[in-house]
Amino acid sequence: MQIDRSPLARPFPQLPAIAGVTLRVARARYKAWDRCDLTFAELAEGTSVAGVFTKSACASSEVELGRDAVKLGRARALIVNAGNSNAFTGWRGRAAVAAIRAQVSGALGCGLDEVFVSSTGVIGVPLPIDKAQAGIAAALEAAPCSWEDAAKAIGTTDTFTKGAGAAALIGGTRVELAGFIKGSGMIAPDMATMLGYIFTDADVAPAFLQEALERANAATFSCITVDGDTSTSDTVMAFATGKAGNARIEGWDSPGADAFAAALGDVCRELAQLVVRDGEGARKFVTIRVSGAVSDDSARVIGLAIANSPLVKTAIAGEDANWGRVVMAVGKAGEPADRDRLSIAFGGVWAARNGVPVEDYDEAPVAAHLKGEEIDIAVDLGLGDGRATVWTCDLTHGYIAINADYRS
Amino acid sequence: MQIDRSPLARPFPQLPAIAGVTLRVARARYKAWDRCDLTFAELAEGTSVAGVFTKSACASSEVELGRDAVKLGRARALIVNAGNSNAFTGWRGRAAVAAIRAQVSGALGCGLDEVFVSSTGVIGVPLPIDKAQAGIAAALEAAPCSWEDAAKAIGTTDTFTKGAGAAALIGGTRVELAGFIKGSGMIAPDMATMLGYIFTDADVAPAFLQEALERANAATFSCITVDGDTSTSDTVMAFATGKAGNARIEGWDSPGADAFAAALGDVCRELAQLVVRDGEGARKFVTIRVSGAVSDDSARVIGLAIANSPLVKTAIAGEDANWGRVVMAVGKAGEPADRDRLSIAFGGVWAARNGVPVEDYDEAPVAAHLKGEEIDIAVDLGLGDGRATVWTCDLTHGYIAINADYRS
Repeated sequence: MQIDRSPLARPFPQLPAIAGVTLRVARARYKAWDRCDLTFAELAEGTSVAGVFTKSACASSEVELGRDAVKLGRARALIVNAGNSNAFTGWRGRAAVAAIRAQVSGALGCGLDEVFVSSTGVIGVPLPIDKAQAGIAAALEAAPCSWEDAAKAIGTTDTFTKGAGAAALIGGTRVELAGFIKGSGMIAPDMATMLGYIFTDADVAPAFLQEALERANAATFSCITVDGDTSTSDTVMAFATGKAGNARIEGWDSPGADAFAAALGDVCRELAQLVVRDGEGARKFVTIRVSGAVSDDSARVIGLAIANSPLVKTAIAGEDANWGRVVMAVGKAGEPADRDRLSIAFGGVWAARNGVPVEDYDEAPVAAHLKGEEIDIAVDLGLGDGRATVWTCDLTHGYIAINADYRS
Repeated sequence: MQIDRSPLARPFPQLPAIAGVTLRVARARYKAWDRCDLTFAELAEGTSVAGVFTKSACASSEVELGRDAVKLGRARALIVNAGNSNAFTGWRGRAAVAAIRAQVSGALGCGLDEVFVSSTGVIGVPLPIDKAQAGIAAALEAAPCSWEDAAKAIGTTDTFTKGAGAAALIGGTRVELAGFIKGSGMIAPDMATMLGYIFTDADVAPAFLQEALERANAATFSCITVDGDTSTSDTVMAFATGKAGNARIEGWDSPGADAFAAALGDVCRELAQLVVRDGEGARKFVTIRVSGAVSDDSARVIGLAIANSPLVKTAIAGEDANWGRVVMAVGKAGEPADRDRLSIAFGGVWAARNGVPVEDYDEAPVAAHLKGEEIDIAVDLGLGDGRATVWTCDLTHGYIAINADYRS
């Protein structure tokens, strides 16, 4: 089945070179296709690394090994395989990752734990070691490639290539950030995986990089959902080469720490939103702002309950300001809520306030808003100061077609 | 939009009269339709009552008042309004329920707390008191009706009428149970609600009836899902008139207690499964058996994570034995699981065992099984003795059509 480019797609941005990062791609041919499907990012000595990984109890070997290795804080290489996720493959899967690490650490003269591997694609089939090794050998010989080439090579069922960049000033020194991501398309028998990577020339201590990435992740990647289903391979990593020559950021008290964290947050937010824009069957990009919750975390849980509700998502697909379904989703979230203090708005127009429909509610501007591509839902719980913003897409026939009809 | 009768529908069963229960229906005309939409069940003096209600934090006034009144354990009447859920209507909604209780308690000479009210249908519109009162007056004058008539009158977007019965021996005395339920159809701007009622002539103390209903609920209604969305009005109640003349069941030690609880469980299971069979757009009835979990509760959570996964549900709609999606759902459930001990079967054929695909896996019988209407998925976690069975339906274009396309 040919899947059309998402109507919510964005063009790939101009991204600067990052000193200390060399990107290469190769054809490992993990599937019967003629495209680059192995991405090799070589990183300068002294590169700091951080990572956040799927919370799945059935995570892939790549995730298990990566989760351990980021604790050591050093990276020299990232290898991403597209077309085979190597998930649910037992000891054979672990052996494939070990073989890749051994080959790359030999070639670069670095430690095994400085080589990070991600894989995405079909599950239950061990990653073929021969193809991986030939692909890596080819990548080591290849000329450096662009951000867009690398971003394209990690994609599977993505309908467009996704990247984002930002810059920050650290004590007068300009540092650059550039990242790319894949995710949210899916086709039999593959499983969607979100893999995202951010590179910077900033000099950042690994512990701070990890803290900043976790903070950014909590407000971005952890606030998006397409269908509420969590991959066994989800991974977001950040690499800091230190080539910009700024005074090293050791903690939040270091000069430029906030500016760097803000720039990292911007890149993460843009990458996260691009995944939603490529949500399967998506026709509308939905922003859900929750306020008045008892805590920020409670607001996020409520926002995700709304964003994951099939009834809310189909109502948006149907361009219907069905606030009753939002009430339902708030009620089922398992977080504190008071029906008689709850207020709901679409496109800035309050449909219900304090538990009752607004008397002179004007549906015309709301109907017009819902016909657009960018939908805004606001929910105020009237209980406290907790707030969160989450992003999702609508649930359409396209989703069913992509996930159920692929055999026809 | 006309919605076809579910292909998974079952005929309404023959149900015996229950001494002490008189059913009547009337036309309150809560919507512009010509059908009975008010059900009035009059219950003999001394009837015990029990109830389980939605956990929604935004429950309707009917639920709030009913939840309090069941604690007193006595019922003389049940009124069910179809076409208007009276949810999210603030003080006007509470006033409507109070008016109904006052009218019925006056007519029957009983306490306000012995009158139970449920409503289902459009939300955000206060139940019109004049229509409710005229409907109740008409019902009080009407001739008694059948179980099927009563079951039909509580329906909204149901595509078939749902009932179930059972009998049990209590110390040599035969007691009868009969119940009906509505739920799982939905159409704009209505919200799905599951309302179920079970009546018996057994003599059962209210505290035991509540305990038996909660136990049955945990293994039946709490183990079904269509789309993971929880209504603000969900209600299941049991009424025991005591007219059978058995020795009263006071607790689990009373003669016949287990037999009665088993019969109640049978009725609840059948009613719960009928709701799934009328799931929006359902083409397949799916049974998910989880074993080897660390506890029964953990098994239920994992089963529901599988049953609620859009990716699993669309794979079933696509007749694809996509066990990778089952792995994904197990992984995201938030319960203990070990990828390398996980086994998954479709239709009794193991596709994956202990974390790896079965080597000589024969897909032919599995493919044949998935073409049928009754799908069986077994998951063994290999960790403990916890087990649970949950029921759901597939996710099809019909679901999207019902919930998103209704304006077209």
